[in-house]
Amino acid sequence: MAVYTTLSAAELSALISHYDVGDLISAKGIAEGVSNSNWLIETTSNRYILTMYENRIELSDLPFFLGLLDHLADNGSPVPRTIHDRDGAAFRMIGEKAVALTEFLPGVSIDVPTAQQARAVGAALAGLHDHAADFPGQRPNSMGMAEWQRLFAACGTEGLSRIDPALPELVATELAWLATNWPQDLPRGVIHADLFPDNVLLLGENVSGLIDFYFACTDTIAYDLAVTHAAWSFEKDGTFREDVSRNLIEGYLSQRTLSEAEWQALPVLARGAAIRFIATRAYDWLHTPADALVMRKDPMDFARRLRFYAAQGSTVFAATR
Amino acid sequence: MAVYTTLSAAELSALISHYDVGDLISAKGIAEGVSNSNWLIETTSNRYILTMYENRIELSDLPFFLGLLDHLADNGSPVPRTIHDRDGAAFRMIGEKAVALTEFLPGVSIDVPTAQQARAVGAALAGLHDHAADFPGQRPNSMGMAEWQRLFAACGTEGLSRIDPALPELVATELAWLATNWPQDLPRGVIHADLFPDNVLLLGENVSGLIDFYFACTDTIAYDLAVTHAAWSFEKDGTFREDVSRNLIEGYLSQRTLSEAEWQALPVLARGAAIRFIATRAYDWLHTPADALVMRKDPMDFARRLRFYAAQGSTVFAATR
Repeated sequence: MAVYTTLSAAELSALISHYDVGDLISAKGIAEGVSNSNWLIETTSNRYILTMYENRIELSDLPFFLGLLDHLADNGSPVPRTIHDRDGAAFRMIGEKAVALTEFLPGVSIDVPTAQQARAVGAALAGLHDHAADFPGQRPNSMGMAEWQRLFAACGTEGLSRIDPALPELVATELAWLATNWPQDLPRGVIHADLFPDNVLLLGENVSGLIDFYFACTDTIAYDLAVTHAAWSFEKDGTFREDVSRNLIEGYLSQRTLSEAEWQALPVLARGAAIRFIATRAYDWLHTPADALVMRKDPMDFARRLRFYAAQGSTVFAATR
Repeated sequence: MAVYTTLSAAELSALISHYDVGDLISAKGIAEGVSNSNWLIETTSNRYILTMYENRIELSDLPFFLGLLDHLADNGSPVPRTIHDRDGAAFRMIGEKAVALTEFLPGVSIDVPTAQQARAVGAALAGLHDHAADFPGQRPNSMGMAEWQRLFAACGTEGLSRIDPALPELVATELAWLATNWPQDLPRGVIHADLFPDNVLLLGENVSGLIDFYFACTDTIAYDLAVTHAAWSFEKDGTFREDVSRNLIEGYLSQRTLSEAEWQALPVLARGAAIRFIATRAYDWLHTPADALVMRKDPMDFARRLRFYAAQGSTVFAATR
């Protein structure tokens, strides 16, 4: 969470003048998003989020991300619509950096969800999968199994053992197991792939916004439910929240049916979700100075979730059928 | 500029419930202020800034800062009013940290002012001095000459020379000169003491907000004009902006008269202002890791301004009479 780049008031005003959104009244750099800089912009007509894409976003992916937002919003998902400039462009360049203006959505991110909130999140995720079904864009998952393997290789056995002595063995065993057991031929579609509580805005028990689509891609749809399950169903201390788990899945099922193959695959997909976040967190842990701008996240949080899914995943998901 | 602390949605909602401001709709951590964490809060009734005071603010100073805002706002200065809780308190505690809710003011901070904007800033500063005249609070300047000396001593000759080989000599000579020549017996009152462009909100040519009063104190009033002059009248590359200088002072004079003694003192006060910012920036430069959360500011920017004031200050200020 950071604002990486400074934009002057003159640059902001010049930018805003390319959009039919009135005159600039206020602009505050906000601490949101890890791969870009964001401002909450107020104009004489409305409020908006201005995003400047930093190094971690490929320019060629922007039409997919921004087009997806418009498509989902048109179909009723609570996602921020892209504001197009007077020439119809979804993004503009300031120097070498791309910027986009999107709707401001109300709501706050919560860190300890209620069961009702989890149910609403599950339903919103299924809605997203449903609404994206006829979106023509395609984007490979840049955070798939090949990338997990690459990231762990870059960490090295020595690096992983510095994080936790048990981590190298856990990772090696799990990567081998997942390579053999990863489900094939499940329904594919557009997935969010990173629907952590940070990326959901809630107003009371209702989802008012799904945001930060910068890992969205075309992949196994049920994997997105597994990612969301892994992200939401545990306390800070690692304790499993059965009520959140059950309500998240029941909410999902209220909007989209899971096939028998998807049900069977969920425990495996959840182990994949856990290893995916161990991979990026371990890499960042070893490559980010302890006092840097970006807060490091403990990779072991997801190592504990991985062990949980390996031991109890089948039981937990079966119990929600 | 940072958000140092995370507040959960539950903590935010609990806090907001102590104020008569409606229900929480949105909360965004904003990159504003260097000594505290700030959130832009939207409720069902209005928008507010929530500030959490971090280590650099003394709790015992809060009644002065927050009372001053109310006093200035009551008298017509464009400063954010403090929102008091249902018990009338100007601040509350969350754990060991104090938090306060203040008005949200529109406007953007500009980095390259027009002459007209400089005139408006000068007038707003004089208004502040005028409106604060009957404020009963007192607070010593914690960034006065004794503190400059302490900070430079903490940097050491070796430290200063690492910043620039010429800095130790410049600082030693100037500190000695200022100790002898610092004006006494000038009119005193409440001053902002840090009115950089960052701390002024503008809507077009008008000042819509003066913010960040956390260096405000009781000191020589004309010193505040000198600080503001030093902060506004130079390009990024150090070039003096005569038009900004002249308009800033003319704007000030439109609201408050300078005595003969104040006029005479301005060149000295401006040298003091320059050394004050060299002192804190040099200290921070040597004590902040290059990759830390807070952006370091180059102390040499104000070394150049100091040399300018020493060489041309008398001429520049005399030209504006």
